[in-house]
Amino acid sequence: MSILCVGSVALDSVETPFAKAERVVGGSAVFFASAATLFAPVRVVGVVGNDYPLDELDFLANRGADLSGIEERVGKSFFWAGRYHSDLNGRDTLGTELGVFADFQPEIPEPFRQSRCVFLGNIDPRLQHDVLDQVRSPEVIACDTMNYWIDGSRESLVSLLNRVHILMVNDEEARQLADEPNLLRASRWIRERGPDIVLVKKGEHGAILFADDWLFFVPGFPLEDVFDPTGAGDAFAGGFMGHIERSGSLDTADLRRAMVYGSVMGSFTVERFSVGGLIDLTPEAIAERMSSFHEMTAFEAHVEVEQRV
Amino acid sequence: MSILCVGSVALDSVETPFAKAERVVGGSAVFFASAATLFAPVRVVGVVGNDYPLDELDFLANRGADLSGIEERVGKSFFWAGRYHSDLNGRDTLGTELGVFADFQPEIPEPFRQSRCVFLGNIDPRLQHDVLDQVRSPEVIACDTMNYWIDGSRESLVSLLNRVHILMVNDEEARQLADEPNLLRASRWIRERGPDIVLVKKGEHGAILFADDWLFFVPGFPLEDVFDPTGAGDAFAGGFMGHIERSGSLDTADLRRAMVYGSVMGSFTVERFSVGGLIDLTPEAIAERMSSFHEMTAFEAHVEVEQRV
Repeated sequence: MSILCVGSVALDSVETPFAKAERVVGGSAVFFASAATLFAPVRVVGVVGNDYPLDELDFLANRGADLSGIEERVGKSFFWAGRYHSDLNGRDTLGTELGVFADFQPEIPEPFRQSRCVFLGNIDPRLQHDVLDQVRSPEVIACDTMNYWIDGSRESLVSLLNRVHILMVNDEEARQLADEPNLLRASRWIRERGPDIVLVKKGEHGAILFADDWLFFVPGFPLEDVFDPTGAGDAFAGGFMGHIERSGSLDTADLRRAMVYGSVMGSFTVERFSVGGLIDLTPEAIAERMSSFHEMTAFEAHVEVEQRV
Repeated sequence: MSILCVGSVALDSVETPFAKAERVVGGSAVFFASAATLFAPVRVVGVVGNDYPLDELDFLANRGADLSGIEERVGKSFFWAGRYHSDLNGRDTLGTELGVFADFQPEIPEPFRQSRCVFLGNIDPRLQHDVLDQVRSPEVIACDTMNYWIDGSRESLVSLLNRVHILMVNDEEARQLADEPNLLRASRWIRERGPDIVLVKKGEHGAILFADDWLFFVPGFPLEDVFDPTGAGDAFAGGFMGHIERSGSLDTADLRRAMVYGSVMGSFTVERFSVGGLIDLTPEAIAERMSSFHEMTAFEAHVEVEQRV
């Protein structure tokens, strides 16, 4: 089985305090697939203009991604330009050109319609609905979104919640969607509208998985050199869904590991521009960072607390 | 043995989005001791005016705190008034009256000078130096500070670093002290100036312990109702040092547990005004929350990662 992933296939121009990259490959589907293909086969659906350097995605095909769902149209590819602030936590969008993405109407190839896992990257919730109309009862549907859709397409987005198992958003988006500053309450509000799981990404502060009667916290990996945060959230989603697909399980233990793989993939992503941190990644490097996360969080909870009364 | 704690013993007026408390007991020494006495005996050194409701600290004495180092002077107690923002992450100081604290000159009672652990609460680094001049070779010296001293008494503070084992600061303070936005680099800068350990508190995002060749991350405990964040950092320090004193160990395993006890104490603190969350705390409640932290962070790091090549 495979993961079906629908999202943007874009070109990014990124400025950080350290360097600059011009028109490098990016987009939610590309970052997701760059991480997820390290775990499981991925089927990508998206659209690009005839200016897109598709050969730069060869490494995905070599890792078992099926890219036949990426439609090439005459016109320009989705383009995003942004500049990160000095602490890399904030960024300004310098420009967005939708290009052929403006008319993106995801058409899921017949062989893709039977997929165990589906990842709906951050696109118009109406299109996310359209994708779900075309797939045949996937076991795990995860969905991302952003403030733009929460503001502008709330109704469509809220009705989508009832069709997905996992909502993946950042903390601000969770608060905005639920109109509730407290994350625990916000995630409950969201879960009451459909998803069994709300996965809240907090950038350098890590991520929290909120489920029915438990939650799990994974930190961000502390790095001396954060080079470019672009795509970290989608790579997190890719590591998470990749492990879910590979393990074939939704056990608590595997959801926990999926969270850590998500943070592992996010950490490799921010170490390079574009997908540079994920292209040559080895299983050994992934396993080593996984161990580092364990080392960084594991403790023995003795229960011998005695009160000094 | 005991923990010697030197800091402010204050009255706080606190406004949160939910409620208001007028002139309730607070201050770094009070919050620290309220947490640490749940683990080990504490000796408190501070100063109050003759307006201070010392009977409200009886619960500390009942838990084995020696309050004979709190000097009572004619005048007003240190008073702080603040108002928290709607998300409780920021706050405005509405007023500070130093009162008798303005002339605080810590005099360590003879029986207190031999203490295994010393906690230097957030006071003028020159006074923190004075305290260390009076104690006899403690095994563990931890120190807190704030932006006011980093700006205004940098030289004294930096020379203090060379005399302490653990610096406890929040993330902004660590960055400001090292003049370095990256926390990993900032903590190395600080450790190069003395402390073996830098403990960086990140509020709701948890805390990180940076040591020589390892680090440990503990999350904040997600709560539906954060009532009043005042004192959470000092209570964290109290839980941390309390466990260090009680365990008699500085092993990696105990430092990790100390971090979690710190976060446990911080989480109970923010659930009530003043020290209300720590007064009636039972060993069972502490053990239960400790288990919740374990539940929230534990995962098995399998190393069976296979690359899909």
